[in-house]
Amino acid sequence: MGIVAQKFGGTSVGDATKIQRAARRAIRTQLMGNDVIMVVSAMGKTTDHLVDLAAQISHDPPKREMDMLLTTGEQVSISLMAMAIHEAGHEAISFTGGQVGMITDAYHTKARIQRVDTDRLKEHLKAGKIVIVAGFQGVTEEGAITTLGRGGSDTTAVALAAAVQADVCEIYTDVDGVYTTDPRIVPEAHKVDQVTYDEMLELAALGAGVMHSRAIEFGSKYSVPIHVRSSLTDVPGTMIMHETAGMEDVVVRGVALKRDLAAVVLIGVPNEPGMASKVFGQIAEQNIVVDDIIQSIYEDGKRANVGFTVASSDLSEAKALGDRLSREFGFRGVEVDEGVAKVSIVGIGMRSHTGVAAKMFDALYAADINIEHISTSEIVVSCVVRQEDGEKALKALHTTFGLDKNQGNEG
Amino acid sequence: MGIVAQKFGGTSVGDATKIQRAARRAIRTQLMGNDVIMVVSAMGKTTDHLVDLAAQISHDPPKREMDMLLTTGEQVSISLMAMAIHEAGHEAISFTGGQVGMITDAYHTKARIQRVDTDRLKEHLKAGKIVIVAGFQGVTEEGAITTLGRGGSDTTAVALAAAVQADVCEIYTDVDGVYTTDPRIVPEAHKVDQVTYDEMLELAALGAGVMHSRAIEFGSKYSVPIHVRSSLTDVPGTMIMHETAGMEDVVVRGVALKRDLAAVVLIGVPNEPGMASKVFGQIAEQNIVVDDIIQSIYEDGKRANVGFTVASSDLSEAKALGDRLSREFGFRGVEVDEGVAKVSIVGIGMRSHTGVAAKMFDALYAADINIEHISTSEIVVSCVVRQEDGEKALKALHTTFGLDKNQGNEG
Repeated sequence: MGIVAQKFGGTSVGDATKIQRAARRAIRTQLMGNDVIMVVSAMGKTTDHLVDLAAQISHDPPKREMDMLLTTGEQVSISLMAMAIHEAGHEAISFTGGQVGMITDAYHTKARIQRVDTDRLKEHLKAGKIVIVAGFQGVTEEGAITTLGRGGSDTTAVALAAAVQADVCEIYTDVDGVYTTDPRIVPEAHKVDQVTYDEMLELAALGAGVMHSRAIEFGSKYSVPIHVRSSLTDVPGTMIMHETAGMEDVVVRGVALKRDLAAVVLIGVPNEPGMASKVFGQIAEQNIVVDDIIQSIYEDGKRANVGFTVASSDLSEAKALGDRLSREFGFRGVEVDEGVAKVSIVGIGMRSHTGVAAKMFDALYAADINIEHISTSEIVVSCVVRQEDGEKALKALHTTFGLDKNQGNEG
Repeated sequence: MGIVAQKFGGTSVGDATKIQRAARRAIRTQLMGNDVIMVVSAMGKTTDHLVDLAAQISHDPPKREMDMLLTTGEQVSISLMAMAIHEAGHEAISFTGGQVGMITDAYHTKARIQRVDTDRLKEHLKAGKIVIVAGFQGVTEEGAITTLGRGGSDTTAVALAAAVQADVCEIYTDVDGVYTTDPRIVPEAHKVDQVTYDEMLELAALGAGVMHSRAIEFGSKYSVPIHVRSSLTDVPGTMIMHETAGMEDVVVRGVALKRDLAAVVLIGVPNEPGMASKVFGQIAEQNIVVDDIIQSIYEDGKRANVGFTVASSDLSEAKALGDRLSREFGFRGVEVDEGVAKVSIVGIGMRSHTGVAAKMFDALYAADINIEHISTSEIVVSCVVRQEDGEKALKALHTTFGLDKNQGNEG
């Protein structure tokens, strides 16, 4: 008796059979008395195929046109999903991002949602229809088609769930929930039943890969319970939610590895007020996501080395920007280190436990892994290590913090 | 020094190489001092592939969702075309039908254009960009995505050309112009240099297949010269235009065959005032295109048999409607004949020549073909024949009216 948003990723709508299965799930949810919003991604390898087509024509296609191209993938999915629901004898209507009122800024290929107009959506829900929305896409105020970047369909689903105050946003995927760490690297990883938005945000940001950060942020901000679960079974997955009593009992909820990082160091930056603001302002303007910032001062405080880590995919853009800033503001140079990774432990429980960081450093030392840099926040401790040490570090921490299956931790 | 609209059909944008070739042609046209609007169809077999996908899911998909699905094909093409032009160092921008202001009614799968908002188009032409528009598609006032039906991209191109008062609308295709008849059936057919809108309308309506009627109607109404030509060469094709001096000298411009016709006869229709209006009003409401109407009265004028021919693809819908009308208005029954074809001769010259129809009947008689029905208009004489006689009739008429190659007629 409420509103349920259901998001089906590319593997969950990969062919006609899977689309029909997703359709049946939505119908079942509706028959249980709920209004149902479906958000679907492009079918399986569609996006790859479209990217290939573009690559045959251009080495550096305009981003606006890439968005025009890629959004067709989701448009195909929504129409087929609507057909599947009709074929099963139920009412459905499909909408593109633009049609449903998903208004974004104009940063093509990684646009941000500005607002969601829900009038049309609510009208059709009220009429008893399952409303199917193309994930990943939006439209600017001027009507240009945009995409929300990686994991954008999750963001679409949670944003719509927030906008209509849905009771839950279900994320259907090919895994059955959120794990203590990546089970492909650590076979001892196990599913957790609950995780807080903050923990999940850290895990997502650190590369857990199940959901995109922005979707979790939306969920947290608007208190949308997010249920990450398998499209193949009815087994409950993992609830992402605000903290509840008892959740603090687990000190470390999960450990995460961010593998593809690169460090950029601006050498000899004049240590003047406003310099950091200028540098990171320009980086932000180019929508480069900075992972960590490390600044050290020398020459009696006149100069600083300003380092930051970015995703390897953003490195060439970050390097080019660094070079430009270097000329503009008189830095002494730009250095790049491509071979780093970051391993982190995450848990709201560590707020009330001491010695967690020390235990982590001990574990890495015992595994003969050198720590290049340490950063901490309230619920995270992270260590930057050489890329080749990443997996070993992850395994050591998973065991150290009692997360291995049958260690009796949770779930 | 003008505005040129260029339409590239599916075979002209079938792969990356062909898209690049079309892009170069548009760029060349722009470099010659023209503003260029490109209208593109879906790549090669894309539409078939999408139709297959739908068929895997539904036997009778909602038309609105078919439009949602099929329009993705053109959206892929426009983005790739824009990339190709950018890659060649020129400016371009792509628009979906909705974005460019192609407003239609809500008859999904065969919508009609209501109006074209050209502000955005003109703005970008003024800025020196090649404007690329998705053919075949539009959007209702409410924002629902529609398609214009078969040949819709031609209609898009001519409608845009009309809206911006383009100097010419070039239709690029895999044939090099309009022929005296279908050269696949009559190898002696030859290309004509000029044809009037009226002649072309009749030829198109009669199945010549090069262009869709609606596009030609638009061209005629707004006096847009239409140049049908090959995408592979620079050889001039056929100009479709208003009548000029000398064009009347050719008595028969072309002969045409409409193969896939079916006749529906409403038996025993009460011959009351307004009955025809009711019957054909309802047929029109369902957007069934009636080819010919044949009415004969009997029982002292109290009853009539009302026959009409439709495309075979519309037969089941027409039959169902006939049955419903039959119950509603007390007809005696509905009869169907699936096996007919229509062969026609077309030419503005026949207005000023006598004996043209008689010559046609003679030719069919000499070829031992029975004529089931005759209809005439100012520039057309048509005979309904058995479907199996269609091609033989076409060949006989092509020869009789001096259209065979090397008969010295035209071109």
